[in-house]
Amino acid sequence: MPNLFMFEKPIGMRDTLPELFRLKESVRSRMAKETKLYGYRFLDTPSLEFYETVGQVSAIKDQQLFKLLDKEGHSLVLRPDMTAPIARVASSHLLKEGNPLRMAYSANVFRSQEKEGGRLAEFEQFGVEMIGDKTLSADAEVMTLLTGVLQAAGLSHYHITIGHIAFVHEVLRHYGGTEERAGVMRRYLFEKNYVGYREYVQELNLPANSQQILNKLPDLKGNEDVLDLALELTEQNVGSTALRELKELAHMLKKAGINSHLSFDLTLVSHMDYYTGILFEVLGDHVGFPLGNGGRYNELYRNFGQDAPATGFGLRLDRIIEAIGAVDAEEPPLCLIYNEAGQLAAMEKAAALRAEGKAVVTQNIAGIAHLDTFTRNFTNISYMLDAKELGGES
Amino acid sequence: MPNLFMFEKPIGMRDTLPELFRLKESVRSRMAKETKLYGYRFLDTPSLEFYETVGQVSAIKDQQLFKLLDKEGHSLVLRPDMTAPIARVASSHLLKEGNPLRMAYSANVFRSQEKEGGRLAEFEQFGVEMIGDKTLSADAEVMTLLTGVLQAAGLSHYHITIGHIAFVHEVLRHYGGTEERAGVMRRYLFEKNYVGYREYVQELNLPANSQQILNKLPDLKGNEDVLDLALELTEQNVGSTALRELKELAHMLKKAGINSHLSFDLTLVSHMDYYTGILFEVLGDHVGFPLGNGGRYNELYRNFGQDAPATGFGLRLDRIIEAIGAVDAEEPPLCLIYNEAGQLAAMEKAAALRAEGKAVVTQNIAGIAHLDTFTRNFTNISYMLDAKELGGES
Repeated sequence: MPNLFMFEKPIGMRDTLPELFRLKESVRSRMAKETKLYGYRFLDTPSLEFYETVGQVSAIKDQQLFKLLDKEGHSLVLRPDMTAPIARVASSHLLKEGNPLRMAYSANVFRSQEKEGGRLAEFEQFGVEMIGDKTLSADAEVMTLLTGVLQAAGLSHYHITIGHIAFVHEVLRHYGGTEERAGVMRRYLFEKNYVGYREYVQELNLPANSQQILNKLPDLKGNEDVLDLALELTEQNVGSTALRELKELAHMLKKAGINSHLSFDLTLVSHMDYYTGILFEVLGDHVGFPLGNGGRYNELYRNFGQDAPATGFGLRLDRIIEAIGAVDAEEPPLCLIYNEAGQLAAMEKAAALRAEGKAVVTQNIAGIAHLDTFTRNFTNISYMLDAKELGGES
Repeated sequence: MPNLFMFEKPIGMRDTLPELFRLKESVRSRMAKETKLYGYRFLDTPSLEFYETVGQVSAIKDQQLFKLLDKEGHSLVLRPDMTAPIARVASSHLLKEGNPLRMAYSANVFRSQEKEGGRLAEFEQFGVEMIGDKTLSADAEVMTLLTGVLQAAGLSHYHITIGHIAFVHEVLRHYGGTEERAGVMRRYLFEKNYVGYREYVQELNLPANSQQILNKLPDLKGNEDVLDLALELTEQNVGSTALRELKELAHMLKKAGINSHLSFDLTLVSHMDYYTGILFEVLGDHVGFPLGNGGRYNELYRNFGQDAPATGFGLRLDRIIEAIGAVDAEEPPLCLIYNEAGQLAAMEKAAALRAEGKAVVTQNIAGIAHLDTFTRNFTNISYMLDAKELGGES
């Protein structure tokens, strides 16, 4: 077999080299610190799950799953998200009498890619799940924490768009007339293809009033006022419960003082089909794709034999880092280059400095292939040859 | 499809619940801090690699690999170790003119298990690779760092056994007479089946001197004196270079003051077949399996087109945690339980406390299913109902 793939990685797979590793570690740690301040507890689940348990429940399309067979012929998947695995573990171990449970994760998830087009097949998701609490306070808490986490990450420019999946469903179903038409319109809205959406609405030959309302739907974006506009536009009982929930959420978020990065988009539809209520999307300044998303999902736990309402968010660490942009340079450690005669002195000096918390590389000069290029990695070098220290400084 | 696997996980897969997660995080972070003090830089590689690139190079048996096919029909593996992936990335990106390179990792690796017998199919390995330095100073550095990392983890009782694979190879080959016999004897030594080993040596009808030397081999364990014993026992040029290396290493480690946890075992053989020189195994007090192992591997990089000698170690985080034993209890956060009237006051109080770095759970009383069981999760609870604070304290 020729070494065709030598040095190569599978489609969508990336190495995390030291500089990026350090940045990810620092951003993740600040986000986790903020999350813990809200009493959320981190957990982890296996990379591999049964397809029947977690793969099918996940909102990720079947063709994006990495599948394999175990030795007994069971179908396994590499987890495509963390919401379904956490539902599995919360249902079997953690949920006690349906009481509220606050869980967090920072874990790699997997989505198979068709071709190498820059989309990652493995990436780290940072998220929280607030399980067992049906109140809007839980949604408000998750969104407050979301803004706290984004700020802790170091993002100053971001935007959160809020919608309600029940509003979209009810309006499209009621004014479109059939579930099938609602599905087509939802697809256009998901793709943000408003031209296609309006053309399709035109083709349907609906009553004038229905057509007018459906045509106005894509304009229902902006500040809190769009909620009142929508209430005026639609009939009572068509999306009005959803709108009242959004108004109450807006009120809570304003009281929490986090309304400056928020807006509403009543056409918001997610690729995650498990959402049942309020949902939202996080956008950054320099990044083409959403940084993350979240919302309420009150039905998912039924797959695990529990009737637990839940809400949460998931953020992509790679995109947050892309949105932050700047990287602070890493200061290289002090380097002590020694020969046999200087070895003991170098070891003792390094041990003393490390005890003070200072990073020190000790390097036998006999182990260096090219001294001139090796020393380029350091700004501070001491030579300890013949038990005496030469040049540099400590 | 019946819910046969509902709530179940694949063979050898485990959830990491919050208490264990916190412990792993704390131990890993202390180990990483120590590692960085030696100038080692952390990196990560993808979970999936090409079988042809990394799977075949790894020292893990083919039947322990999780294999799958990508959409183009290439064979992929879930990485079974980190040494081979790091060799891939170092060879393509990081090695500069063969100069020494210090890399570290803490990453999950995968080993398929035949049946559920307590052996993990996914576990976290913490390790370092010192690449490009052929000197014994590099081996001594890796072992010094190893003891530093174990101590930073909080392990006080551990033991490192040091051997040399070239010594074993040369003695078995020379006195056994053929490569095949040497292979059988190596297998017995690997299994620590010394009865089987001696019976096999007996069966071979070797010259009396060869038989005597082979029979004495399993006794070559203990402090530095066994190196001199071995030098006396064997002929010149049979394992003597290896023994001189071990003596020099012992001298360096004694100077570094880390000889108290060390001993020598000249029968030490690893399941990792890429070792070429000094190798070692780490044993804990309460754990049946080694906590980790390491050694010199000077040939592996040839698979990636480089002639780079290397040495390193890998530790199993799960076994280190098992060896540490005790877990310090986690202090639960303050819990503020509020109703609608108390919500604003609760939010303000929580924000103020979080700004001081204190963790606070805020919970709408309407979201609690059973107040008596919910409150059992906390030791410090304040009720903020009617905008006034009742009971508990802050």
